[in-house]
Amino acid sequence: MSDTHALEALIQSLRRLPGVGIKSAQRMAFHLLQHDREGAQLMAQALQQAVGQVRHCQQCHTFTEKDLCSTCTDERRDATKLCVVETPADQSALERTAAFKGLYFVLMGRLSPLDGIGPKDIGLQKLFDRATDGVVQEVILATNFTAEGEATAHVIAQALKAKGLQVTRLARGVPAGSELEYVDLGTIAHALVDRR
Amino acid sequence: MSDTHALEALIQSLRRLPGVGIKSAQRMAFHLLQHDREGAQLMAQALQQAVGQVRHCQQCHTFTEKDLCSTCTDERRDATKLCVVETPADQSALERTAAFKGLYFVLMGRLSPLDGIGPKDIGLQKLFDRATDGVVQEVILATNFTAEGEATAHVIAQALKAKGLQVTRLARGVPAGSELEYVDLGTIAHALVDRR
Repeated sequence: MSDTHALEALIQSLRRLPGVGIKSAQRMAFHLLQHDREGAQLMAQALQQAVGQVRHCQQCHTFTEKDLCSTCTDERRDATKLCVVETPADQSALERTAAFKGLYFVLMGRLSPLDGIGPKDIGLQKLFDRATDGVVQEVILATNFTAEGEATAHVIAQALKAKGLQVTRLARGVPAGSELEYVDLGTIAHALVDRR
Repeated sequence: MSDTHALEALIQSLRRLPGVGIKSAQRMAFHLLQHDREGAQLMAQALQQAVGQVRHCQQCHTFTEKDLCSTCTDERRDATKLCVVETPADQSALERTAAFKGLYFVLMGRLSPLDGIGPKDIGLQKLFDRATDGVVQEVILATNFTAEGEATAHVIAQALKAKGLQVTRLARGVPAGSELEYVDLGTIAHALVDRR
Protein backbone atom coordinates (compact mmCIF):
# COMPACT_ATOMS: atom_id res chain seq x y z
CA MET A 1 0.00 0.00 0.00
CA SER A 2 1.38 3.36 -1.02
CA ASP A 3 0.49 5.09 2.24
CA THR A 4 2.34 2.68 4.53
CA HIS A 5 5.94 3.18 3.43
CA ALA A 6 7.22 3.66 6.97
CA LEU A 7 5.42 0.54 8.21
CA GLU A 8 6.79 -1.55 5.34
CA ALA A 9 10.31 -0.26 5.96
CA LEU A 10 10.00 -1.16 9.65
CA ILE A 11 8.81 -4.70 8.84
CA GLN A 12 11.67 -5.20 6.36
CA SER A 13 14.26 -3.96 8.85
CA LEU A 14 12.94 -6.29 11.58
CA ARG A 15 13.32 -9.22 9.19
CA ARG A 16 17.09 -8.74 9.37
CA LEU A 17 17.04 -10.03 12.96
CA PRO A 18 18.08 -13.70 13.25
CA GLY A 19 15.12 -16.07 13.47
CA VAL A 20 12.56 -13.45 12.40
CA GLY A 21 10.48 -14.15 9.27
CA ILE A 22 7.80 -12.06 7.61
CA LYS A 23 4.98 -13.06 9.99
CA SER A 24 7.04 -12.40 13.13
CA ALA A 25 8.27 -9.08 11.72
CA GLN A 26 4.68 -7.98 11.02
CA ARG A 27 3.61 -9.01 14.52
CA MET A 28 6.54 -7.11 16.06
CA ALA A 29 5.86 -3.97 14.02
CA PHE A 30 2.12 -4.02 14.83
CA HIS A 31 2.85 -4.59 18.50
CA LEU A 32 5.29 -1.69 18.69
CA LEU A 33 3.03 0.75 16.82
CA GLN A 34 -0.18 -0.32 18.55
CA HIS A 35 0.92 -1.04 22.10
CA ASP A 36 4.50 0.12 22.74
CA ARG A 37 5.59 3.24 20.87
CA GLU A 38 7.74 4.17 23.85
CA GLY A 39 9.52 0.82 23.45
CA ALA A 40 10.05 1.50 19.76
CA GLN A 41 11.73 4.80 20.54
CA LEU A 42 13.86 3.24 23.28
CA MET A 43 14.92 0.55 20.82
CA ALA A 44 15.85 3.13 18.16
CA GLN A 45 18.03 4.98 20.68
CA ALA A 46 19.57 1.76 22.02
CA LEU A 47 20.44 0.60 18.50
CA GLN A 48 22.13 3.90 17.63
CA GLN A 49 24.06 4.07 20.89
CA ALA A 50 25.19 0.45 20.65
CA VAL A 51 26.35 0.87 17.05
CA GLY A 52 28.15 4.07 17.97
CA GLN A 53 29.78 2.91 21.20
CA VAL A 54 30.24 -0.86 21.24
CA ARG A 55 33.50 -2.15 19.77
CA HIS A 56 35.85 -5.05 20.41
CA CYS A 57 38.29 -5.32 23.32
CA GLN A 58 41.77 -5.01 21.82
CA GLN A 59 43.00 -7.89 23.93
CA CYS A 60 40.19 -10.47 24.19
CA HIS A 61 37.96 -9.38 21.30
CA THR A 62 34.72 -9.31 23.33
CA PHE A 63 32.24 -6.42 23.14
CA THR A 64 33.19 -3.37 25.18
CA GLU A 65 32.85 0.41 25.08
CA LYS A 66 36.52 1.04 25.95
CA ASP A 67 39.83 -0.06 24.42
CA LEU A 68 40.10 -2.89 26.93
CA CYS A 69 37.17 -4.69 28.59
CA SER A 70 36.65 -4.77 32.35
CA THR A 71 37.84 -8.39 32.58
CA CYS A 72 41.12 -7.75 30.76
CA THR A 73 41.89 -4.72 32.94
CA ASP A 74 41.09 -6.56 36.19
CA GLU A 75 44.49 -7.06 37.87
CA ARG A 76 43.15 -9.78 40.17
CA ARG A 77 42.70 -12.16 37.22
CA ASP A 78 45.29 -14.87 36.57
CA ALA A 79 46.97 -13.81 33.31
CA THR A 80 48.70 -17.17 32.86
CA LYS A 81 45.38 -18.87 32.01
CA LEU A 82 43.48 -18.02 28.81
CA CYS A 83 40.00 -19.46 28.20
CA VAL A 84 38.79 -19.53 24.57
CA VAL A 85 35.00 -19.22 24.06
CA GLU A 86 32.83 -18.72 21.00
CA THR A 87 30.60 -15.83 22.12
CA PRO A 88 30.20 -13.25 24.91
CA ALA A 89 27.15 -15.30 26.06
CA ASP A 90 29.41 -18.33 26.59
CA GLN A 91 31.85 -16.12 28.47
CA SER A 92 29.17 -14.86 30.83
CA ALA A 93 27.96 -18.44 31.43
CA LEU A 94 31.49 -19.33 32.55
CA GLU A 95 31.74 -16.14 34.63
CA ARG A 96 28.53 -17.01 36.48
CA THR A 97 30.14 -20.25 37.71
CA ALA A 98 32.85 -18.19 39.47
CA ALA A 99 35.09 -21.22 38.88
CA PHE A 100 37.56 -19.52 36.54
CA LYS A 101 39.80 -16.61 37.49
CA GLY A 102 41.91 -16.31 34.34
CA LEU A 103 41.40 -14.24 31.22
CA TYR A 104 39.36 -14.89 28.08
CA PHE A 105 39.60 -14.79 24.32
CA VAL A 106 36.25 -14.51 22.57
CA LEU A 107 36.28 -15.89 19.00
CA MET A 108 32.98 -14.20 18.07
CA GLY A 109 32.17 -17.25 16.00
CA ARG A 110 33.35 -20.75 15.14
CA LEU A 111 34.91 -22.47 12.17
CA SER A 112 32.12 -23.48 9.82
CA PRO A 113 33.37 -24.48 6.36
CA LEU A 114 29.80 -25.10 5.14
CA ASP A 115 28.91 -21.46 5.86
CA GLY A 116 32.23 -20.26 4.43
CA ILE A 117 33.61 -19.27 7.86
CA GLY A 118 37.33 -19.99 7.93
CA PRO A 119 40.23 -19.23 10.33
CA LYS A 120 40.48 -15.59 9.15
CA ASP A 121 36.81 -14.82 9.82
CA ILE A 122 37.03 -15.70 13.53
CA GLY A 123 40.37 -13.99 14.15
CA LEU A 124 42.44 -17.09 14.89
CA GLN A 125 45.68 -15.23 14.11
CA LYS A 126 44.77 -12.69 16.77
CA LEU A 127 44.26 -15.55 19.23
CA PHE A 128 47.64 -17.08 18.32
CA ASP A 129 49.36 -13.71 18.87
CA ARG A 130 47.54 -13.30 22.18
CA ALA A 131 48.37 -16.81 23.42
CA THR A 132 52.06 -16.51 22.60
CA ASP A 133 52.63 -13.23 24.46
CA GLY A 134 54.93 -15.00 26.93
CA VAL A 135 52.60 -14.61 29.92
CA VAL A 136 49.94 -17.16 28.99
CA GLN A 137 50.93 -20.67 30.05
CA GLU A 138 47.70 -22.63 29.65
CA VAL A 139 44.97 -22.24 27.03
CA ILE A 140 41.59 -23.74 28.04
CA LEU A 141 39.35 -24.49 25.07
CA ALA A 142 35.71 -23.85 26.01
CA THR A 143 34.15 -23.82 22.55
CA ASN A 144 30.78 -25.57 22.32
CA PHE A 145 30.54 -29.36 22.24
CA THR A 146 28.96 -29.29 18.79
CA ALA A 147 30.57 -30.57 15.60
CA GLU A 148 31.67 -27.04 14.67
CA GLY A 149 32.84 -26.16 18.18
CA GLU A 150 34.86 -29.39 18.40
CA ALA A 151 36.46 -28.73 15.01
CA THR A 152 37.36 -25.21 16.09
CA ALA A 153 38.90 -26.53 19.32
CA HIS A 154 40.86 -29.12 17.35
CA VAL A 155 42.35 -26.56 14.93
CA ILE A 156 43.32 -24.23 17.79
CA ALA A 157 44.80 -27.07 19.85
CA GLN A 158 46.95 -28.27 16.94
CA ALA A 159 48.35 -24.78 16.29
CA LEU A 160 49.02 -23.87 19.94
CA LYS A 161 50.54 -27.22 20.89
CA ALA A 162 53.00 -26.73 18.01
CA LYS A 163 54.05 -23.49 19.72
CA GLY A 164 54.73 -25.37 22.97
CA LEU A 165 51.74 -24.15 24.99
CA GLN A 166 49.72 -26.31 27.38
CA VAL A 167 46.25 -26.74 25.84
CA THR A 168 43.29 -28.22 27.76
CA ARG A 169 39.62 -28.77 26.97
CA LEU A 170 36.57 -28.54 29.26
CA ALA A 171 35.77 -32.01 30.62
CA ARG A 172 33.01 -33.99 28.98
CA GLY A 173 30.80 -36.06 31.23
CA VAL A 174 27.41 -36.60 32.79
CA PRO A 175 25.65 -33.28 33.61
CA ALA A 176 24.96 -32.56 37.28
CA GLY A 177 21.52 -33.72 38.45
CA SER A 178 20.93 -36.14 35.57
CA GLU A 179 19.89 -39.81 35.67
CA LEU A 180 22.09 -42.17 33.64
CA GLU A 181 19.04 -43.75 32.02
CA TYR A 182 18.25 -40.49 30.23
CA VAL A 183 21.79 -39.42 29.26
CA ASP A 184 22.80 -40.03 25.64
CA LEU A 185 25.25 -42.87 24.98
CA GLY A 186 28.04 -40.68 23.59
CA THR A 187 28.12 -38.68 26.81
CA ILE A 188 28.19 -41.82 28.98
CA ALA A 189 31.00 -43.30 26.84
CA HIS A 190 33.05 -40.11 27.27
CA ALA A 191 32.36 -40.10 31.02
CA LEU A 192 33.61 -43.71 31.24
CA VAL A 193 36.81 -42.98 29.35
CA ASP A 194 37.51 -39.84 31.38
CA ARG A 195 36.59 -41.46 34.76
CA ARG A 196 38.57 -40.32 37.79
CA MET B 1 29.62 -5.49 33.24
CA SER B 2 30.17 -1.80 33.73
CA ASP B 3 31.70 -1.22 30.30
CA THR B 4 28.81 -2.68 28.31
CA HIS B 5 25.98 -0.29 29.18
CA ALA B 6 24.98 0.26 25.56
CA LEU B 7 24.93 -3.48 24.85
CA GLU B 8 22.81 -4.17 27.94
CA ALA B 9 20.38 -1.39 27.00
CA LEU B 10 20.05 -2.85 23.50
CA ILE B 11 19.33 -6.34 24.85
CA GLN B 12 16.72 -4.97 27.26
CA SER B 13 14.99 -2.97 24.53
CA LEU B 14 14.87 -6.00 22.19
CA ARG B 15 13.17 -7.98 24.97
CA ARG B 16 10.14 -5.70 24.59
CA LEU B 17 9.41 -7.33 21.22
CA PRO B 18 6.66 -9.97 21.40
CA GLY B 19 8.01 -13.51 21.63
CA VAL B 20 11.57 -12.42 22.43
CA GLY B 21 13.15 -13.62 25.69
CA ILE B 22 16.57 -12.95 27.14
CA LYS B 23 18.41 -15.55 25.04
CA SER B 24 16.84 -14.40 21.76
CA ALA B 25 17.50 -10.76 22.64
CA GLN B 26 21.18 -11.53 23.31
CA ARG B 27 21.45 -13.43 20.04
CA MET B 28 19.82 -10.56 18.13
CA ALA B 29 22.07 -7.94 19.74
CA PHE B 30 25.24 -9.97 19.11
CA HIS B 31 24.18 -10.61 15.51
CA LEU B 32 23.51 -6.94 14.82
CA LEU B 33 26.76 -5.74 16.41
CA GLN B 34 28.95 -8.49 14.97
CA HIS B 35 27.48 -9.06 11.51
CA ASP B 36 24.96 -6.37 10.58
CA ARG B 37 25.64 -2.89 11.94
CA GLU B 38 24.13 -1.45 8.78
CA GLY B 39 20.92 -3.35 9.58
CA ALA B 40 20.96 -1.97 13.13
CA GLN B 41 21.15 1.58 11.81
CA LEU B 42 18.42 0.93 9.24
CA MET B 43 16.25 -0.48 12.02
CA ALA B 44 16.84 2.56 14.24
CA GLN B 45 15.79 4.87 11.40
CA ALA B 46 12.79 2.73 10.46
CA LEU B 47 11.60 2.68 14.08
CA GLN B 48 11.82 6.45 14.41
CA GLN B 49 10.11 7.11 11.09
CA ALA B 50 7.33 4.62 11.80
CA VAL B 51 6.68 6.06 15.26
CA GLY B 52 6.69 9.57 13.80
CA GLN B 53 4.57 8.95 10.72
CA VAL B 54 2.28 5.96 11.20
CA ARG B 55 -1.14 6.70 12.72
CA HIS B 56 -4.65 5.30 12.41
CA CYS B 57 -7.01 5.88 9.48
CA GLN B 58 -9.82 8.10 10.78
CA GLN B 59 -12.40 5.93 9.08
CA CYS B 60 -11.26 2.30 9.30
CA HIS B 61 -8.67 2.52 12.09
CA THR B 62 -5.89 0.68 10.19
CA PHE B 63 -2.30 1.95 10.05
CA THR B 64 -1.68 4.74 7.55
CA GLU B 65 0.49 7.82 7.11
CA LYS B 66 -2.41 10.05 6.01
CA ASP B 67 -5.77 10.99 7.53
CA LEU B 68 -7.50 8.32 5.49
CA CYS B 69 -5.92 5.09 4.21
CA SER B 70 -5.68 4.22 0.52
CA THR B 71 -8.52 1.68 0.78
CA CYS B 72 -10.98 4.13 2.37
CA THR B 73 -10.23 6.79 -0.27
CA ASP B 74 -10.58 4.35 -3.19
CA GLU B 75 -13.85 5.35 -4.89
CA ARG B 76 -14.14 2.03 -6.71
CA ARG B 77 -14.80 0.19 -3.42
CA ASP B 78 -18.36 -0.74 -2.48
CA ALA B 79 -19.15 1.47 0.51
CA THR B 80 -22.29 -0.48 1.39
CA LYS B 81 -20.23 -3.46 2.61
CA LEU B 82 -18.03 -3.21 5.71
CA CYS B 83 -15.71 -6.08 6.66
CA VAL B 84 -14.55 -6.21 10.30
CA VAL B 85 -11.09 -7.76 10.91
CA GLU B 86 -8.82 -7.97 13.94
CA THR B 87 -5.50 -6.76 12.48
CA PRO B 88 -3.98 -5.16 9.36
CA ALA B 89 -2.42 -8.59 8.63
CA ASP B 90 -5.90 -10.13 8.47
CA GLN B 91 -7.01 -7.31 6.20
CA SER B 92 -4.14 -7.89 3.79
CA ALA B 93 -4.89 -11.65 3.76
CA LEU B 94 -8.44 -10.83 2.64
CA GLU B 95 -7.17 -8.28 0.11
CA ARG B 96 -4.88 -10.87 -1.46
CA THR B 97 -7.93 -13.04 -2.26
CA ALA B 98 -9.35 -10.18 -4.40
CA ALA B 99 -12.78 -11.59 -3.46
CA PHE B 100 -13.98 -8.56 -1.49
CA LYS B 101 -14.51 -5.09 -2.94
CA GLY B 102 -16.06 -3.35 0.05
CA LEU B 103 -14.47 -1.36 2.86
CA TYR B 104 -12.89 -2.47 6.14
CA PHE B 105 -12.89 -1.71 9.81
CA VAL B 106 -9.77 -2.88 11.64
CA LEU B 107 -10.34 -3.53 15.35
CA MET B 108 -6.59 -3.60 16.15
CA GLY B 109 -7.32 -6.31 18.68
CA ARG B 110 -10.04 -8.60 19.99
CA LEU B 111 -12.11 -8.86 23.14
CA SER B 112 -10.09 -10.76 25.70
CA PRO B 113 -11.49 -10.49 29.23
CA LEU B 114 -8.66 -12.61 30.65
CA ASP B 115 -6.12 -10.04 29.42
CA GLY B 116 -8.34 -7.16 30.52
CA ILE B 117 -9.20 -6.13 26.95
CA GLY B 118 -12.79 -4.90 26.86
CA PRO B 119 -15.02 -3.16 24.27
CA LYS B 120 -13.41 0.24 24.86
CA ASP B 121 -9.87 -1.04 24.22
CA ILE B 122 -10.65 -2.20 20.70
CA GLY B 123 -12.72 0.82 19.69
CA LEU B 124 -16.08 -0.91 19.36
CA GLN B 125 -17.95 2.41 19.75
CA LYS B 126 -16.01 3.73 16.76
CA LEU B 127 -17.08 0.68 14.77
CA PHE B 128 -20.74 1.18 15.78
CA ASP B 129 -20.59 4.85 14.69
CA ARG B 130 -18.94 3.82 11.42
CA ALA B 131 -21.45 1.02 10.67
CA THR B 132 -24.48 3.26 11.31
CA ASP B 133 -23.42 6.07 8.96
CA GLY B 134 -26.39 5.36 6.69
CA VAL B 135 -24.29 4.08 3.78
CA VAL B 136 -23.20 0.72 5.18
CA GLN B 137 -25.86 -1.96 4.63
CA GLU B 138 -24.00 -5.18 5.41
CA VAL B 139 -21.35 -5.82 8.04
CA ILE B 140 -19.20 -8.92 7.39
CA LEU B 141 -17.50 -10.25 10.51
CA ALA B 142 -14.06 -11.65 9.64
CA THR B 143 -12.55 -11.91 13.10
CA ASN B 144 -10.48 -15.04 13.71
CA PHE B 145 -12.15 -18.38 14.36
CA THR B 146 -10.60 -18.61 17.81
CA ALA B 147 -12.50 -18.44 21.08
CA GLU B 148 -11.67 -14.74 21.45
CA GLY B 149 -12.39 -13.90 17.80
CA GLU B 150 -15.75 -15.71 17.99
CA ALA B 151 -16.67 -13.86 21.19
CA THR B 152 -15.75 -10.55 19.56
CA ALA B 153 -17.88 -11.38 16.52
CA HIS B 154 -20.79 -12.34 18.77
CA VAL B 155 -20.68 -9.07 20.72
CA ILE B 156 -20.52 -7.00 17.52
CA ALA B 157 -23.28 -8.99 15.85
CA GLN B 158 -25.63 -8.51 18.82
CA ALA B 159 -25.07 -4.76 18.91
CA LEU B 160 -25.38 -4.16 15.15
CA LYS B 161 -28.39 -6.42 14.62
CA ALA B 162 -30.15 -4.37 17.31
CA LYS B 163 -29.53 -1.33 15.11
CA GLY B 164 -31.22 -3.06 12.14
CA LEU B 165 -28.05 -3.80 10.09
CA GLN B 166 -27.50 -6.99 8.12
CA VAL B 167 -24.63 -8.86 9.84
CA THR B 168 -22.88 -11.87 8.26
CA ARG B 169 -19.91 -14.06 9.26
CA LEU B 170 -17.25 -15.71 7.08
CA ALA B 171 -18.35 -19.26 6.25
CA ARG B 172 -16.86 -22.07 8.29
CA GLY B 173 -16.05 -25.28 6.44
CA VAL B 174 -13.44 -27.64 5.10
CA PRO B 175 -10.31 -25.79 3.86
CA ALA B 176 -9.52 -26.07 0.14
CA GLY B 177 -7.14 -28.91 -0.69
CA SER B 178 -7.69 -30.83 2.53
CA GLU B 179 -8.59 -34.48 3.03
CA LEU B 180 -11.57 -35.14 5.31
CA GLU B 181 -9.60 -37.77 7.23
CA TYR B 182 -7.26 -35.08 8.55
CA VAL B 183 -9.77 -32.28 9.21
CA ASP B 184 -10.78 -31.77 12.85
CA LEU B 185 -14.26 -32.91 13.85
CA GLY B 186 -15.57 -29.47 14.79
CA THR B 187 -14.82 -28.18 11.30
CA ILE B 188 -16.52 -31.16 9.64
CA ALA B 189 -19.57 -30.74 11.89
CA HIS B 190 -19.82 -27.05 10.91
CA ALA B 191 -19.39 -27.92 7.23
CA LEU B 192 -22.25 -30.46 7.52
CA VAL B 193 -24.59 -27.95 9.18
CA ASP B 194 -23.75 -25.22 6.66
CA ARG B 195 -23.88 -27.55 3.61
CA ARG B 196 -25.23 -26.03 0.40
